[in-house]
Amino acid sequence: MQHTCYRIALSVGMLATFAALGHAGDQDRPNIVVILCDDLGYADVGFNGAKDITTPQLDQLAAAGTIFTSAYVTHPFCGPSRMGLMSGRYPHSFGAPFNLPNSGQGFEDYNRQGIDPNETLISTVLQDAGYYTGAIGKWHMGYEHPFHPNQRGFDEFYGFLGGGHQYFPDRYRPIYERQIRAGKTTINDYIAPLEHNGKTVDETEYITDGLSREAVRFVQSAGDRDQPFFLYLAYNAPHSPLEAKVEDLARFAGIKDKKRQTYAAMVYAVDRGVGQLVQTLKNSGQFDDTLIVFLSDNGGKIGLGANNGPLREGKGSTHEGGYRVPMFFHWPGKVPAGDRYHHPVSALDFYPTFARLAKAEIPATKTLNGKDIWDDLLAGRSARQGEMIFALRHRSGYSDVGARRDAWKICRTAQTPWKLFHLDDDLGETHDLSAAYPEKVAAMVAEAERWSRDHTTPRWFDDEEAEQRWLETGMPNYNATFEVK
Amino acid sequence: MQHTCYRIALSVGMLATFAALGHAGDQDRPNIVVILCDDLGYADVGFNGAKDITTPQLDQLAAAGTIFTSAYVTHPFCGPSRMGLMSGRYPHSFGAPFNLPNSGQGFEDYNRQGIDPNETLISTVLQDAGYYTGAIGKWHMGYEHPFHPNQRGFDEFYGFLGGGHQYFPDRYRPIYERQIRAGKTTINDYIAPLEHNGKTVDETEYITDGLSREAVRFVQSAGDRDQPFFLYLAYNAPHSPLEAKVEDLARFAGIKDKKRQTYAAMVYAVDRGVGQLVQTLKNSGQFDDTLIVFLSDNGGKIGLGANNGPLREGKGSTHEGGYRVPMFFHWPGKVPAGDRYHHPVSALDFYPTFARLAKAEIPATKTLNGKDIWDDLLAGRSARQGEMIFALRHRSGYSDVGARRDAWKICRTAQTPWKLFHLDDDLGETHDLSAAYPEKVAAMVAEAERWSRDHTTPRWFDDEEAEQRWLETGMPNYNATFEVK
Amino acid sequence: MQHTCYRIALSVGMLATFAALGHAGDQDRPNIVVILCDDLGYADVGFNGAKDITTPQLDQLAAAGTIFTSAYVTHPFCGPSRMGLMSGRYPHSFGAPFNLPNSGQGFEDYNRQGIDPNETLISTVLQDAGYYTGAIGKWHMGYEHPFHPNQRGFDEFYGFLGGGHQYFPDRYRPIYERQIRAGKTTINDYIAPLEHNGKTVDETEYITDGLSREAVRFVQSAGDRDQPFFLYLAYNAPHSPLEAKVEDLARFAGIKDKKRQTYAAMVYAVDRGVGQLVQTLKNSGQFDDTLIVFLSDNGGKIGLGANNGPLREGKGSTHEGGYRVPMFFHWPGKVPAGDRYHHPVSALDFYPTFARLAKAEIPATKTLNGKDIWDDLLAGRSARQGEMIFALRHRSGYSDVGARRDAWKICRTAQTPWKLFHLDDDLGETHDLSAAYPEKVAAMVAEAERWSRDHTTPRWFDDEEAEQRWLETGMPNYNATFEVK
Repeated sequence: MQHTCYRIALSVGMLATFAALGHAGDQDRPNIVVILCDDLGYADVGFNGAKDITTPQLDQLAAAGTIFTSAYVTHPFCGPSRMGLMSGRYPHSFGAPFNLPNSGQGFEDYNRQGIDPNETLISTVLQDAGYYTGAIGKWHMGYEHPFHPNQRGFDEFYGFLGGGHQYFPDRYRPIYERQIRAGKTTINDYIAPLEHNGKTVDETEYITDGLSREAVRFVQSAGDRDQPFFLYLAYNAPHSPLEAKVEDLARFAGIKDKKRQTYAAMVYAVDRGVGQLVQTLKNSGQFDDTLIVFLSDNGGKIGLGANNGPLREGKGSTHEGGYRVPMFFHWPGKVPAGDRYHHPVSALDFYPTFARLAKAEIPATKTLNGKDIWDDLLAGRSARQGEMIFALRHRSGYSDVGARRDAWKICRTAQTPWKLFHLDDDLGETHDLSAAYPEKVAAMVAEAERWSRDHTTPRWFDDEEAEQRWLETGMPNYNATFEVK
Repeated sequence: MQHTCYRIALSVGMLATFAALGHAGDQDRPNIVVILCDDLGYADVGFNGAKDITTPQLDQLAAAGTIFTSAYVTHPFCGPSRMGLMSGRYPHSFGAPFNLPNSGQGFEDYNRQGIDPNETLISTVLQDAGYYTGAIGKWHMGYEHPFHPNQRGFDEFYGFLGGGHQYFPDRYRPIYERQIRAGKTTINDYIAPLEHNGKTVDETEYITDGLSREAVRFVQSAGDRDQPFFLYLAYNAPHSPLEAKVEDLARFAGIKDKKRQTYAAMVYAVDRGVGQLVQTLKNSGQFDDTLIVFLSDNGGKIGLGANNGPLREGKGSTHEGGYRVPMFFHWPGKVPAGDRYHHPVSALDFYPTFARLAKAEIPATKTLNGKDIWDDLLAGRSARQGEMIFALRHRSGYSDVGARRDAWKICRTAQTPWKLFHLDDDLGETHDLSAAYPEKVAAMVAEAERWSRDHTTPRWFDDEEAEQRWLETGMPNYNATFEVK
Repeated sequence: MQHTCYRIALSVGMLATFAALGHAGDQDRPNIVVILCDDLGYADVGFNGAKDITTPQLDQLAAAGTIFTSAYVTHPFCGPSRMGLMSGRYPHSFGAPFNLPNSGQGFEDYNRQGIDPNETLISTVLQDAGYYTGAIGKWHMGYEHPFHPNQRGFDEFYGFLGGGHQYFPDRYRPIYERQIRAGKTTINDYIAPLEHNGKTVDETEYITDGLSREAVRFVQSAGDRDQPFFLYLAYNAPHSPLEAKVEDLARFAGIKDKKRQTYAAMVYAVDRGVGQLVQTLKNSGQFDDTLIVFLSDNGGKIGLGANNGPLREGKGSTHEGGYRVPMFFHWPGKVPAGDRYHHPVSALDFYPTFARLAKAEIPATKTLNGKDIWDDLLAGRSARQGEMIFALRHRSGYSDVGARRDAWKICRTAQTPWKLFHLDDDLGETHDLSAAYPEKVAAMVAEAERWSRDHTTPRWFDDEEAEQRWLETGMPNYNATFEVK
């Protein structure tokens, strides 16, 4: 980690600059807290119907806020989804449709990559507008300069840079130390030490608890400042490895499936942390001035304990289970309480919506694919009548696509013909109506094809073979993808 | 490209040496132009029956020359096929039965490999005999000293060293530049700059047009010399990526399949270039003194727009579609005009045939697998009555083989039993006659096995796993391959 | 091989120390010779029923000793099996459940790994007890310090460090030399030169003969010493590549299947070497004082000429064919002659049994999974009544398991449900009795699960992807593996 010093220097410099600007906190600009879970299934929180998994803290917030039943992320995989959320653009447009490989997977060249430096993230916009900003947890948008969170709008970063992590320090630290002793040159992210602003730290708690502790600390220290704050709290739970604390497992002893039991205990640990965070906000009198957004980065992973409820398939799919996620907004007296908002929204919308609430200026050159949904949310009307929300996943030699417009969705997977679903009548995507509405299919596919035209060559790939294939043939089977037969 | 300077120095040195030798051109030694297409299907030129793809320039040459209906290359893949053509030997005999991996595929060790330095290529033979020699387009026989074309008998080289390339400089250059800026250490060949005699150039034209332009330039400059010339014009078209100019696409608007449309436009761009080359030869009065050979390096790739007509399968196969290629010879007043030659010939035959026409001396130690077919061509009789032509492709753990003797062919693919076909009666290889002629099968398989005995350990492999498997077990399933059950 | 000097220095140092200790040989402590074959099938020696393969020397020893019909190794693959034998522990317990990748397979980090330095091997125990120790043949337990045999209890090492080797020096040396000339940085173990105590040697004989020659030399030089000796003679035969001497092939001309013929000739070459070794022992009067143990490291590889007889499947399987091996003990007047011992024993038992015979001290901190079987062997009774012998192989995302207790065995492969077999009645594992004895299955699976609890994260993996998967999810599908449905 040769870049450590650089990062610290920069971070200190940013803080200094910031203090000089002397932004004052103001009551009409809310603090913003985004709580992001990792691979959390649509139906794996109480507020979305989970019975075996209990999430009392989340449920209480959800009940006092608005639950979004049709919230989408920008990609059915972690990395691209996060980049879409932070940039306000579909990741395909700036070369990020693949997960950034983890260190230790043998793609060293790619490890020098990260989210396009030309993309100004919402964190920078809020930071520039006087927010005190913190990212806690999983980053997965790049390792080195200029991709590190401290260089992308975050005054504080505590967590890990890769795509996941083991949960018990006393289990992973010995493996890490043995590999270091053995002279291994690339250490897998899952076992590397956590860091704080580029400096390695010796985390000793179960990771979820450690991240909650840091979130509490951030909120406390932010409370001492004369600024609103933006906290991006990205738990890696309940992403694999499935590792839970004994006491949390005991709480779910009634769940016979061991994976589900562990998964439940991991989600519960998040819920406990959310409770601590809420209590801290209340204690410091900031709760009423804070917009809390909770969501998952993509669907739950089938076979690893998750449950996406009525939605078809899960993580990785362009069916609903892949990229429609559990989500709520909570802000006392501002966000409607006890409501469910059924119109489609996207994580793309956070950027312009947050910027508006923060009275922040978005750079004139910034391209955004989402929209400020605030007024529509308050009015309970759709923010994108007649407009499409997309998902596109490249696979080995072909691509899966999902595209929704109002109640209709077209979907193509595994090189089978395009299907058409009416989501209001058929949330589970079981009745293909394409034969009955060929013109609708053709029109929607044509729109998806138009959408895809600004997609660029990925900046990194799953592997070298994928890169070779892409450079040789372009987007996997582009023509075939948007062909209607 | 640290070897750039070295190459230039050497190249200049060679030219100097050459001038000192003072070879004079003579009227009875023809100029020789080999126009090689990449992955062009058997039926994808007008002279072989294409209706949707128009190739007026090629058709005109073909009609004024002799079309070979049974022309074979030495391997159903690009790299080995080219090495067979240039060396006059089956590539399996000098360790080249696999494609040389492209840069950026992660096999850096293999990138230091290339066609066996002990093999004297036909280019060197012709160069030594006083020909001015040029290679334009795709090389794919090695990157560094001593594999670079300027070190293998070519006074001039313009093109790229890898196995393929993107076609539009304004599309691939930004990707290349971004990767360079990002510090990527291995750049994929498909997006790297072209070169001229080892020196990077800034090509700006659609690649096919750029190569045609350079071929015209070479012929013009050769015309000023008192030497005959040898031009190896190796278009990468219509190899993937499928990228064509808008105006060429427009010409094939009637083709509904987008891949086929693009493919057709790419072939047409080659035809346009051939027209320019022919016009240049005519303008400079060299046309009548020039033998033009046109062919493909292997069968067209199924699923990428190609059509191998009546032949079974395509690129990569040891059925006819994999390695029987469209071909013609043209030389006014010398090569029979308007003829079709149906006897089997091989790209292996170029070496001795060209050498004879060029009155060039073949090194006494040179092993050749082909034969001088000139007299037989003029006489319209078979050059290899009772002799075999082979194809052998190693796959993961087994090998596919094709071997033709006169009208009979044995073929083994995918570890199924040997099949026997009578090509005169069954060009499409649909009727397996092995049960009716078991002794013929046994005799032909035995001959193929004898042929394979001088095959050596490959100098490079598809991947490290293939190398390990080979070093551990020898030629994939050698015994099983030549077993007749 | 920068470590060469270091190794030599160390080796010399050890010898010096040893001489200083002045251990004297004593008549009641036997010499111990372990002859290990590589991938030799259960039924591929005369003493286990082979008719087409003749092994007269082995048969004679077996007939004069005790044949073990239920001898198990610790893993169905070479590397882990050897590490289990040498350490006396299941390899899963110290991070070695995978084969150590060969050099040249692209896992350079792993090449710096090897058998856990904290494991004191039986060779060290015997060396410390005054034995003169030698390892000849295949090592496969690590390349560099501190994994080299000279650093793991062997006064002498002659052979190769990787997982296999080609057999004919005049075939592999030219490939090696060509790669060196070409600047290849990683040379595949199969073609690298052999070494003697860390110093490259120029072996010229067919490898099996070369190893036999060195074994004879070791025994002769050991005979001059006033110490008992321990010889670990690890032939790589009949592991692939299938390469045999012409004269040995001729002896098996009657075998029509070429693989089987070659395999037979390779086994015969081992038998010849064993004969030479026995003759040397007799000539020097050491034969009666020598315990000879013969076995295979795992089952024969299906499709490469091996025959595991009545056992189901072969190398790599957790059915009996994968890890039950041909074995005998021979020690005139000590080991019962002409006997067959049918109770289950394990290569794990060598360590404590040898130590007892050698009156050697096992470090107090050493964990052993096997037991001293000497008394039980002499008494003809089971050494582990009611105790389990395990096999566990991790695959891509799941694990295969076999566990035997007395006559019963549970087995799970390819993610199918657990099966139960009664080996006394059903040696071929064809009749699954799990439905009839669900409680027995549950109890045995529970015991296997308990056994697996001390398994640690592997120190190396098959490939980087396997590492990532493991670090992310732990032992492939741990819960599912030990689930009884």
